[in-house]
Amino acid sequence: MGDELPDVSGLSIGILGGTGDQGKGLARRFAVAGHTVLIGSRSASRAQEAADSLGPGLPVRGAENPSVASEADIVIVAVPWDGHRSLLESLRSELEGKIVVDCVNPLGFDKQGAFALDVEEGSAAQQAAVVLSGSRVVAAFHHVSAVLLLDPEVEEVDLDVLVLGDDREATGTVQALASRIPGVRGIYGGRLRNARQIEAFTANLISINRRYKAHAGLRITDV
Amino acid sequence: MGDELPDVSGLSIGILGGTGDQGKGLARRFAVAGHTVLIGSRSASRAQEAADSLGPGLPVRGAENPSVASEADIVIVAVPWDGHRSLLESLRSELEGKIVVDCVNPLGFDKQGAFALDVEEGSAAQQAAVVLSGSRVVAAFHHVSAVLLLDPEVEEVDLDVLVLGDDREATGTVQALASRIPGVRGIYGGRLRNARQIEAFTANLISINRRYKAHAGLRITDV
Repeated sequence: MGDELPDVSGLSIGILGGTGDQGKGLARRFAVAGHTVLIGSRSASRAQEAADSLGPGLPVRGAENPSVASEADIVIVAVPWDGHRSLLESLRSELEGKIVVDCVNPLGFDKQGAFALDVEEGSAAQQAAVVLSGSRVVAAFHHVSAVLLLDPEVEEVDLDVLVLGDDREATGTVQALASRIPGVRGIYGGRLRNARQIEAFTANLISINRRYKAHAGLRITDV
Repeated sequence: MGDELPDVSGLSIGILGGTGDQGKGLARRFAVAGHTVLIGSRSASRAQEAADSLGPGLPVRGAENPSVASEADIVIVAVPWDGHRSLLESLRSELEGKIVVDCVNPLGFDKQGAFALDVEEGSAAQQAAVVLSGSRVVAAFHHVSAVLLLDPEVEEVDLDVLVLGDDREATGTVQALASRIPGVRGIYGGRLRNARQIEAFTANLISINRRYKAHAGLRITDV
C-alpha cells in the first residue's frame, strides 16, 4: 500500500460521547484489540454503564468527558453534531497537543431520508480544527456501521476507514489505529479541506442501506 | 442486490464533450459492449477524430453536440465544469424528455491538490436538473478512471458506479448501463440532493491516487 504505519498497540483511546452506538462500537473493537479504552460522557455513571454494557473482561471504563480527554493518548470525538462545537470548546486545554479524531457526520433527516448539513467551517472536522487550534485534528471513522461494530458474531468488518488530515504523522497513527479492527484498512483520504464530502457521504450510505437492506461500507480499489 | 435492472442492450449512447479522456474512455467501453455510441463536440471533425482514435471496428462515430443530443437514446454529459451550464442551456430542447447522465466533477486545483468547488445549485447534477427541467437527470460515472477505461489491457474495471437521481426508472436504467462495463456494478446511491459529495469525492480519490500511486475507485460492501 505504500504506507509505513507506526505501532500503536500501546496507546489508550478515549471516546468523547462514547455512550452512543458508534462510540460503544468503536470502544468494543479497540478494547478487544487490547487497547485501554475510556468512554466519556457528561455523566460518569452513564459512561460506566456504557462500558459495562460491552461485557466483562474488557479493558474499558467510563468517566466524565474532561477526565477522558486528559487521560487518553488519543481522543475520538463521537458526539452528536448538535453538541459538537460546545463540547470541544469546553475541552480545549485537556486536548492541547493531542491527536483528536473527529468522526462526526453533520446530517439532517426528513421524510426523503438523510442529507448533509452546511457547516460554517466547511465540515465537522474543520470546525474541530478551528476550535482546537492546539490539537492535531484528524477525520476518520465516519462510515463504520455501529451495528456491525457491536455485533459479536461479526469477526471482520468489511470496509476501509478513510483518514484525513494535514499532519502526516497524525494521519499515519490513526490509519494504524483503524487497522487494529479486524478487516479494516486505514487509508489516507486527503487533507481536512476535503473532509466535508466524507462526512456527507454517510447520507448516501444511509440511502444505500435503505434500498439494499444492507450495512454498506466503502472499499478503495487499487490500493 | 435487491435491484431488478432493465435490459438496456439496445440503447444508443451520446457523450457530450466526448473528446476528453473520460468521454472517450466511456465511449470505448460502451462500444465494446455493443452499444452504438455518438461522441459529441463543438466541432464535428474533432468528434470524429476522437471516435477514430478508439480503433477500427467499433460502433462509434462523432458529430456536433446538438446532433448527438437529438439522436442518442441516453445522453452523458462529460464536459469540463467551466462549460457545463452554457452547454446544457443550449441543448434544452434536444434533451427534452431524455435521460441525461451528468458525470461532471466541479473541482479546483492548487499546489495542495484538488478541492471541491461550491456550486450555486448544490452540485453539477442539480445544476443540470435546474437547467434541463424537462429531462430526467441522473448523476453517475464520477469516479471512473479514464486511464483504466482507455487501457485495452484492462479487461475488468474494479469499481462500483454510484447512480443518483429522483426518478427510479431512470436511475435503474443508468445502473444497468453502468453494469455493461465488465467489472462494474451500477449501485443506487441516493437522491440528487446528495450528489455534491459524490462529485466532490473525486478530490479525495485524486489525493489517494497521489499517495498510493494508484487508480483508485470505490466498492460498496454488503451490497
